[in-house]
Amino acid sequence: MSAPKKVVLAYSGGLDTSIILKWLQVEYGCEVVTFTADLGQGEELDPARKKAELLGIKPENIYIEDVREEFVRDFVFPMFRANAVYEGLYLLGTSIARPLISKRLVEIAQETGADAIAHGATGKGNDQVRFELSAYALNPDIKVIAPWRLWSLTSRTTLIEWAERNQVPVPKDKRGEAPFSVDANLLHTSSEGKVLEDPAVDAPDYVYQRTVNPEDAPDAPEFIEVGFEKGDAVSINGEAMSPATILTALNEYGRKHGIGRLDLVEGRYVGMKSRGIYETPGGTILLAAHRGIEQITLDRGAAHLKDELMPRYAELIYNGYWFSPEREMLQAAIDLSQTHVEGTVRLKLYKGLASVVGRWSERSLYSEAHVTFEDDAGAYDQKDAAGFIKLNALRLKLLATRDRKLKG
Amino acid sequence: MSAPKKVVLAYSGGLDTSIILKWLQVEYGCEVVTFTADLGQGEELDPARKKAELLGIKPENIYIEDVREEFVRDFVFPMFRANAVYEGLYLLGTSIARPLISKRLVEIAQETGADAIAHGATGKGNDQVRFELSAYALNPDIKVIAPWRLWSLTSRTTLIEWAERNQVPVPKDKRGEAPFSVDANLLHTSSEGKVLEDPAVDAPDYVYQRTVNPEDAPDAPEFIEVGFEKGDAVSINGEAMSPATILTALNEYGRKHGIGRLDLVEGRYVGMKSRGIYETPGGTILLAAHRGIEQITLDRGAAHLKDELMPRYAELIYNGYWFSPEREMLQAAIDLSQTHVEGTVRLKLYKGLASVVGRWSERSLYSEAHVTFEDDAGAYDQKDAAGFIKLNALRLKLLATRDRKLKG
Amino acid sequence: MSAPKKVVLAYSGGLDTSIILKWLQVEYGCEVVTFTADLGQGEELDPARKKAELLGIKPENIYIEDVREEFVRDFVFPMFRANAVYEGLYLLGTSIARPLISKRLVEIAQETGADAIAHGATGKGNDQVRFELSAYALNPDIKVIAPWRLWSLTSRTTLIEWAERNQVPVPKDKRGEAPFSVDANLLHTSSEGKVLEDPAVDAPDYVYQRTVNPEDAPDAPEFIEVGFEKGDAVSINGEAMSPATILTALNEYGRKHGIGRLDLVEGRYVGMKSRGIYETPGGTILLAAHRGIEQITLDRGAAHLKDELMPRYAELIYNGYWFSPEREMLQAAIDLSQTHVEGTVRLKLYKGLASVVGRWSERSLYSEAHVTFEDDAGAYDQKDAAGFIKLNALRLKLLATRDRKLKG
Amino acid sequence: MSAPKKVVLAYSGGLDTSIILKWLQVEYGCEVVTFTADLGQGEELDPARKKAELLGIKPENIYIEDVREEFVRDFVFPMFRANAVYEGLYLLGTSIARPLISKRLVEIAQETGADAIAHGATGKGNDQVRFELSAYALNPDIKVIAPWRLWSLTSRTTLIEWAERNQVPVPKDKRGEAPFSVDANLLHTSSEGKVLEDPAVDAPDYVYQRTVNPEDAPDAPEFIEVGFEKGDAVSINGEAMSPATILTALNEYGRKHGIGRLDLVEGRYVGMKSRGIYETPGGTILLAAHRGIEQITLDRGAAHLKDELMPRYAELIYNGYWFSPEREMLQAAIDLSQTHVEGTVRLKLYKGLASVVGRWSERSLYSEAHVTFEDDAGAYDQKDAAGFIKLNALRLKLLATRDRKLKG
Repeated sequence: MSAPKKVVLAYSGGLDTSIILKWLQVEYGCEVVTFTADLGQGEELDPARKKAELLGIKPENIYIEDVREEFVRDFVFPMFRANAVYEGLYLLGTSIARPLISKRLVEIAQETGADAIAHGATGKGNDQVRFELSAYALNPDIKVIAPWRLWSLTSRTTLIEWAERNQVPVPKDKRGEAPFSVDANLLHTSSEGKVLEDPAVDAPDYVYQRTVNPEDAPDAPEFIEVGFEKGDAVSINGEAMSPATILTALNEYGRKHGIGRLDLVEGRYVGMKSRGIYETPGGTILLAAHRGIEQITLDRGAAHLKDELMPRYAELIYNGYWFSPEREMLQAAIDLSQTHVEGTVRLKLYKGLASVVGRWSERSLYSEAHVTFEDDAGAYDQKDAAGFIKLNALRLKLLATRDRKLKG
Repeated sequence: MSAPKKVVLAYSGGLDTSIILKWLQVEYGCEVVTFTADLGQGEELDPARKKAELLGIKPENIYIEDVREEFVRDFVFPMFRANAVYEGLYLLGTSIARPLISKRLVEIAQETGADAIAHGATGKGNDQVRFELSAYALNPDIKVIAPWRLWSLTSRTTLIEWAERNQVPVPKDKRGEAPFSVDANLLHTSSEGKVLEDPAVDAPDYVYQRTVNPEDAPDAPEFIEVGFEKGDAVSINGEAMSPATILTALNEYGRKHGIGRLDLVEGRYVGMKSRGIYETPGGTILLAAHRGIEQITLDRGAAHLKDELMPRYAELIYNGYWFSPEREMLQAAIDLSQTHVEGTVRLKLYKGLASVVGRWSERSLYSEAHVTFEDDAGAYDQKDAAGFIKLNALRLKLLATRDRKLKG
Repeated sequence: MSAPKKVVLAYSGGLDTSIILKWLQVEYGCEVVTFTADLGQGEELDPARKKAELLGIKPENIYIEDVREEFVRDFVFPMFRANAVYEGLYLLGTSIARPLISKRLVEIAQETGADAIAHGATGKGNDQVRFELSAYALNPDIKVIAPWRLWSLTSRTTLIEWAERNQVPVPKDKRGEAPFSVDANLLHTSSEGKVLEDPAVDAPDYVYQRTVNPEDAPDAPEFIEVGFEKGDAVSINGEAMSPATILTALNEYGRKHGIGRLDLVEGRYVGMKSRGIYETPGGTILLAAHRGIEQITLDRGAAHLKDELMPRYAELIYNGYWFSPEREMLQAAIDLSQTHVEGTVRLKLYKGLASVVGRWSERSLYSEAHVTFEDDAGAYDQKDAAGFIKLNALRLKLLATRDRKLKG
Repeated sequence: MSAPKKVVLAYSGGLDTSIILKWLQVEYGCEVVTFTADLGQGEELDPARKKAELLGIKPENIYIEDVREEFVRDFVFPMFRANAVYEGLYLLGTSIARPLISKRLVEIAQETGADAIAHGATGKGNDQVRFELSAYALNPDIKVIAPWRLWSLTSRTTLIEWAERNQVPVPKDKRGEAPFSVDANLLHTSSEGKVLEDPAVDAPDYVYQRTVNPEDAPDAPEFIEVGFEKGDAVSINGEAMSPATILTALNEYGRKHGIGRLDLVEGRYVGMKSRGIYETPGGTILLAAHRGIEQITLDRGAAHLKDELMPRYAELIYNGYWFSPEREMLQAAIDLSQTHVEGTVRLKLYKGLASVVGRWSERSLYSEAHVTFEDDAGAYDQKDAAGFIKLNALRLKLLATRDRKLKG
């Protein structure tokens, strides 16, 4: 790869990406464009602008954007239509944010005439894969620079030394090593590494940043109603809200009631297992609610097909294949299934649990006339069941007849 | 179908199956054999013997058996190896008990020279299908009698009248209609019908029989350690136990902490949707624990394949195909994956939540050396990731190149 | 079911459906509307009109329609986009025609105010299921009358006697039993029953009606080029044609070269196995050609997902679930994948074989630059493969390390 | 990676692997052990010994083995139980041989105290992946040397020059470039590269080495009977044979009748598409025969599950994951299904086509009693079909009722 001339960097404003910014300048003598996105990670973005300026980035090369609505509308919600969970439990909070960042990096590269993008993900994790597969899928000629795979600054000490040698301001509290590593956005906060590396040992309380401990949550349950249209949440307690607003509100409910904590050991795409602590307060409520509304509005055939496709779909997102034909094919199937997923779900929130306790819809497929223990006025003829069973049993009977013949 | 000469009846000792017992005698003039199983439903079986005798069943025709160990060892545990849930949530507590009952009915028919079996499931539900598919798969020539699909006693009034006319003792408290219908075994209790028929309305508190309300559960969490071998739970807090003993103990933990309640609308195999309230206290803990031990002992490739096969496997059990070649094929794949699923999981139980907080194993695949943020001593070469991503991206780049060419 | 007042009958003009026509009139005293479709079965439709009139059907109640274009465009082609084969071999020629017939029956019922439809399929086959599931999916209140499941005319003799007693003209050559049963449309001809019932015995030559014996096919191969757009065939040898015209032309190529014969024992949805002889001359060429064009225009990820979904998709069509949410979901995924399936395939046709020998496309993903054994000018860096393999191997190495530890 | 001390080389005796042999000696100064396997590629192995000796390999370091029986019994046959085809067409002839070679390389390394293995696959293909994944799965500490990814001998000229400079004998006919590249074993011969690189252009006749051109095959068909036990072929025309003997015999039948030619563009695991010409004469017959015997002996539920699992299984083999938990899980499921796959299939071989024309078995599930058009003596009650359809239609009716309500 020839040296890049102009690089768009995914820039958080933190120390690590500031060092990367400087390293790109030093290493390649190239122009750097910074992209800082408000994905709902809960940090001020203004400092990022100031730091970028301090490091010599031209004002027109500093991109700071609030992408929360796009994030929820075009990435989180489509994923929740699928009830996607990775390895049975993980709600994919980090995975789903990466393609959006890559998309903007590539677009900004196009706008600014940059020939490369750069990110601060390490060579051990999934995020490098997600960033880069997305970038290449959107621009096959883009160069991707992943300094963590290139430089020799592999210990905290050498990194800080390099920063100081190169006039990158190092805040005092960043000199030492963080006790664990954090990623956050509107959907979740994940923590991993260091104090969490032994999967036998309980995660310390201070790791959790986004939810109260269930023990500290209110002693009385709270009930909310989430409204859906075409499979997406559109209101809480009857109040219509935008996608990001709804997720923000659900996060607050979840935070308060200690909902959405997960301690997981998962299989990374790059091959090893890792342990993460995830907090997905609003997403956990949303998943329960979405399954609740599907229960009455989604046909069994569609629902079962969705359930069978889901693990593959979740794996694709986890592995970084958001912008792939196969993810888009699955999305087309899933989205079609959501046409009538509309109505309201009532949930009980209490000390870590989000439980569906009621659901109703103009489009419900639930038929009290068919299911009732009472007289059904002919809606269902119980005698039909005999034929149904007989024909479904036929092949099993033929098998049993063969077995009997072979034994006898 | 010609009239049966001797029928083995799945007999609970309750009013409904007592009426069926008498009806078989009256309708066919046939000999009746009763089979009453202790599946852990929590009822005394002695009264069943007395009632059967009262209704004229010969002592040698009364089979009363404790099948709890067989139930857990040969049905529940194999199913939990798969992490099976139906429609994302239901732990299949009723579904998994039916094949065992059918198996014993067919075996007793063989032993007693009976030509038919009978059950008390209605023509609207899944249980008739499960009973009968299992029976036919085990004996292709068996006759199956399902009185609820045959007789005209479709209202409570006509049923009680018929009972009284035919000398079936009717306890006073059984004259009216129960407010809902219940099925129970060691794995779960399910409730449905009547007061539960409107899925928009919260289930009344009195429906729950197996677990305390989370609000009434202890205010302090409890921690337990569940040991596993070959994918099956074998100990709690270091104490080895038999399968049924373990599930009984987990049920008690779950009951106390309000764990395992589920309010679900599900798609029945016979076509309509129904609403059920399920309580699966021990099973809910077991599922969490099993996923916990798999996280460190099961390879990613195996785990993902299992996750993809699971919905199909669960559907087969729900639909009654336990004794089918395809369920057995899936079981063979699943069981092979469990060879090394051994170790201990630590869980926190608190007000409805069972959360894995730690797991360890001699057979762990988790490699701190590979995942660490610290120096990994060469266990992993971050530069390998570049090639990994490049080749995985190649097809996406070729796609993007085509798209670019087409756009001009 | 109350007696129907007006019935739309799927009417071929043959003896069997003529008897059904009369039987409906006699049995229910109802008005009958006939629907006769030209699906490309290769029979004149005019006689059907005359026979219907003879049996007293009012002219305005006689519907005769050429639906060949609709059949190929809206049913056959969407199915071929999926490369659908049932049980590895069967091209679903009968299955795919049934939903179209049901759709028109239901529409004509709506137009004519009929409350029922009727078909001539027996109670042992798949076609009854396909007709009726489609009809109910399109009109939940329609009555469906399947005389073969209702009447007692179960032997040929009683049937002919009833016909003569009721003034249904019986051609002399229809008095005896046909040596086998035939279904035909533009996609295929299927033959089954009677002389074909022993699956050990070769099908007699006279069963084949649609293709020459490969031994009698030309001794020189013929080469054709099939053009595709969005996954559908659009031209042969450069000449653009409509869907039905293309299939007709491919049928003629296939017929001439003895292509598309299949002797199959298959598992019916109703439970037993049956043996059929299928001739699908044009469809067999089309399937080969479609796979040929996909080879260069479809991404590997999309192609493999399609291959995994295909058996389920084929099963749905075979079982009669064309008009189901899950078939439509799969179709949405499949159709999306076909956006760029465009180009030309060159095939060799010779004595039963249709072999792809070349393919090219403006939208090809095949990159000679990448694959070449020659110098690739840096398109591909072989060293990337080392990292690719290393990371893919990592989990296998961790497994092997565990195995080694356990053994040692 | 530190330099290897002793390397086991997969050695064909050809020029390329002779150069690699020498290069290992020159580059690392290491001891080389050669492993030459008779996989049925149709070449004498004695010359390989002589060449190895000429290049200074000690006699005890020359391993020459006939592994044909192991190859067919433990690799080819298990794969054929699955009816495995990659991308719908490719019988995986190269893919399935690699794990066996790797297994022996690793075993010989263990026996001889070697710390590395080496192979002659390039960095662009699938074979490097297959060799190396297998090796790492069997010995996590083995070093793997792939000279084509390491050296700079990337043109034919530089390679020949290096050989001559280093005293590797270069036969005159090997000086120029071969017009295409060939891999062969008992299952197939594959050809690719050079004259085959344009997928639009017909493969020249001289590429085919293993089968006669169908046009040159006998003008009369030949019929054979293949016997099966537990899913594996065990006899031809009643004569019992060992696995390798059977495949050899089927190859001869296939060769003579021009069966098993395939011109394919496939998606490689490393990301690009490539075009290959495959000849799999015996395997093509075997696949047809195996599907034929499954048709009567395999239950529909088992068969459909197999069909759904197959693409994944084939992909795993193609991608090199033979020794992976997920392939072994799928194999366990597949093998269980084959318990009763026993009987005889009659095939017609004619000018490129292998067609099943009859099949019979003591374990057949085909029931003429059930399927017959004649009186079935009560084996099947057609009225059962009404209930079967009604209940299967119920959810579709509920959907249609909703649609109607929404529209009206």
